[in-house]
Amino acid sequence: MDKKVLSETLQKVREVNPLVHNITNVVVTNFTANGLLALGASPVMAYAAEEVKEMAQLASSLVLNIGTLNPQTVESMILAGKAANEKEIPVLFDPVGAGATNYRTATARKIMNEVKVSIVRGNAAEIANIVGENWKIKGVDAGDTSGDVVNLAIKAAQILNCVVVITGKDDVITDGTTTFLVSNGHQLLTKVTGAGCLLTSVIGAFAGVEKDLLLASTAALAFYGIAAEKAANITAKHGPGSFQIELINQLAMVTPEEITQLAVYEKLQGAELNV
Amino acid sequence: MDKKVLSETLQKVREVNPLVHNITNVVVTNFTANGLLALGASPVMAYAAEEVKEMAQLASSLVLNIGTLNPQTVESMILAGKAANEKEIPVLFDPVGAGATNYRTATARKIMNEVKVSIVRGNAAEIANIVGENWKIKGVDAGDTSGDVVNLAIKAAQILNCVVVITGKDDVITDGTTTFLVSNGHQLLTKVTGAGCLLTSVIGAFAGVEKDLLLASTAALAFYGIAAEKAANITAKHGPGSFQIELINQLAMVTPEEITQLAVYEKLQGAELNV
Amino acid sequence: MDKKVLSETLQKVREVNPLVHNITNVVVTNFTANGLLALGASPVMAYAAEEVKEMAQLASSLVLNIGTLNPQTVESMILAGKAANEKEIPVLFDPVGAGATNYRTATARKIMNEVKVSIVRGNAAEIANIVGENWKIKGVDAGDTSGDVVNLAIKAAQILNCVVVITGKDDVITDGTTTFLVSNGHQLLTKVTGAGCLLTSVIGAFAGVEKDLLLASTAALAFYGIAAEKAANITAKHGPGSFQIELINQLAMVTPEEITQLAVYEKLQGAELNV
Repeated sequence: MDKKVLSETLQKVREVNPLVHNITNVVVTNFTANGLLALGASPVMAYAAEEVKEMAQLASSLVLNIGTLNPQTVESMILAGKAANEKEIPVLFDPVGAGATNYRTATARKIMNEVKVSIVRGNAAEIANIVGENWKIKGVDAGDTSGDVVNLAIKAAQILNCVVVITGKDDVITDGTTTFLVSNGHQLLTKVTGAGCLLTSVIGAFAGVEKDLLLASTAALAFYGIAAEKAANITAKHGPGSFQIELINQLAMVTPEEITQLAVYEKLQGAELNV
Repeated sequence: MDKKVLSETLQKVREVNPLVHNITNVVVTNFTANGLLALGASPVMAYAAEEVKEMAQLASSLVLNIGTLNPQTVESMILAGKAANEKEIPVLFDPVGAGATNYRTATARKIMNEVKVSIVRGNAAEIANIVGENWKIKGVDAGDTSGDVVNLAIKAAQILNCVVVITGKDDVITDGTTTFLVSNGHQLLTKVTGAGCLLTSVIGAFAGVEKDLLLASTAALAFYGIAAEKAANITAKHGPGSFQIELINQLAMVTPEEITQLAVYEKLQGAELNV
Repeated sequence: MDKKVLSETLQKVREVNPLVHNITNVVVTNFTANGLLALGASPVMAYAAEEVKEMAQLASSLVLNIGTLNPQTVESMILAGKAANEKEIPVLFDPVGAGATNYRTATARKIMNEVKVSIVRGNAAEIANIVGENWKIKGVDAGDTSGDVVNLAIKAAQILNCVVVITGKDDVITDGTTTFLVSNGHQLLTKVTGAGCLLTSVIGAFAGVEKDLLLASTAALAFYGIAAEKAANITAKHGPGSFQIELINQLAMVTPEEITQLAVYEKLQGAELNV
């Protein structure tokens, strides 16, 4: 996977304008929609059980996010997910807060069981909580991507049988066999509500135009991280309000050429892994 | 309708601070409320069946928007709409996504049937889907306002017996007899989520202080388009995040005098119409 | 209460990063979460009856806001409130729009009856409507903090047996015995949707780290008012969109030292009160 192919994936998103159907939380809807629009995708939010099957089947990808889950919306997520599965439309899942309450953990597992998820993205704690409480992780809060987190990602991908993306200081992308590490990004992302939720939807946009999901995820993470780096360069001295707005600007402004110049990622060799 | 009367309508909004009751979608609530506040109106969002009748009757206008509809909210919209009708408070309807799913199309038609709507605003595809699938439209996605769209608006106004506003590159406003075309606005509006939803609420603010609904709509569209033009002048090189914020600024900053100077609109003559 | 102790309370918030559980309205969720993050707190929004008890008991404080109330969410608020009470976690209540509809007034009173609220924050009209319609207030809309509003606050604190914060041009904080007046703030706050809602959550963050609730509230109000003053200095000529973003910036930027320099508040003497 060379830089050229990453930058071409961004170009493809901007040419195709994929429709991304989001069933997401009430905190991040506006930010997610504006981020997708800025990038060059077409966001749609639709939640009612009465229409989600139809909407999901119109879309290039479906993003499920349990940030402010409730039983009605979870039912809609499963309906939409199964409808997307029928048409082989990629389904992304963001298990926000899995582990924080029993209801979140149980719901995250239920969605993973009932829907064939293509890509799950979360922090290390969320992913660990989906695959079972016996999995020990260290240094999660610090966004540590030492061997533990890489191993967690690989193990989770094997158990869940999908691509797993764990974001933190560095980001791990794996299908359980092949693993990439992306090092773009900026600490200020942790100061913007929904920066992770929007990222999942951005990966959704890339997965809507590129069937190789490792490539789609790696390209999306490098792109998003570069946008954050540029935004931080411009606004870090002003504060997180300005950074949030400039991040939206940069999602529109980052060019394929900048991906080629600025992407920092590597394929991890099997020797480094210890599952 | 001269420019002076348009600018006086803006002035009236700022003097009266009309209360605009919005039952709208979860993506645009914050942006809509801030836009109305900036303009000089008073937004209120209230959705519960337990209170919407009372709230609607306190308001100067009621705005119904089905962007993230569900059965409970649709019930509330109809209760609120009927309560507004009782007191002859203008009701605006934004049929977001009519045509995208059967549920949206059916709900849009149901609301138009059960509530006496004063002004419906949408893009050409949405309006076409409300008045029936036999109506052929061309060039909708490009925001084309050729004769087809003008004719669609006039036909829809006659069928629906209300003012119809179709927005696109140019905006058509008609009651089925008299038709105006407003040419203010900017392409960047398509890069901001809820720019159309907020516009419907802005028309609601103007309709809350001006009984001539063609005048209220034309003034609101010219005002909103000028705000977008000014915002784009200031921010286009930065990106859509900055444009969104500057649009809110300009809703506060555009003066009645600027309406007089910058409004671009015309009354269409019957000879041009071909219904 | 000297300025040093106010500034130390801000420092404590930034060291502890208290988890603030918000059950709030759909208009302000994003702004509230970003404001809390900027300040240095950890926001969480969780609404489902299935999880609110567990989430509330994980938090340092719980904020209940009825801005877009509905029966399900009100049930969740009461469940969460009682769970917080069990663990003596402070509960803040923002009775948005109490008095505007019967449903809001009744719900506000119901929450005050069923949950032991630690701090209630509203404008004078909202607080008056909670404590009973016989209470006469003057000059509410103008944000008048003449004797009437101070007396209203004290009376309400005695009836409701909690700390009452009434915000307006000046802000009154009282437990019914001891009363403070904070004069920081800026008129532009009235042009930003959810500026009051966010303030309640900011007080929640301070109450999450400081058991003296008069101190926590006074420190939070001075801090928030100073952030608004600084934001207005930078952005007032641009408009309310820029102010909103700069307010988020300043919630991150205001230092404990600036609290010491810029806080304007006083303890009211009993002689001035006339309950």
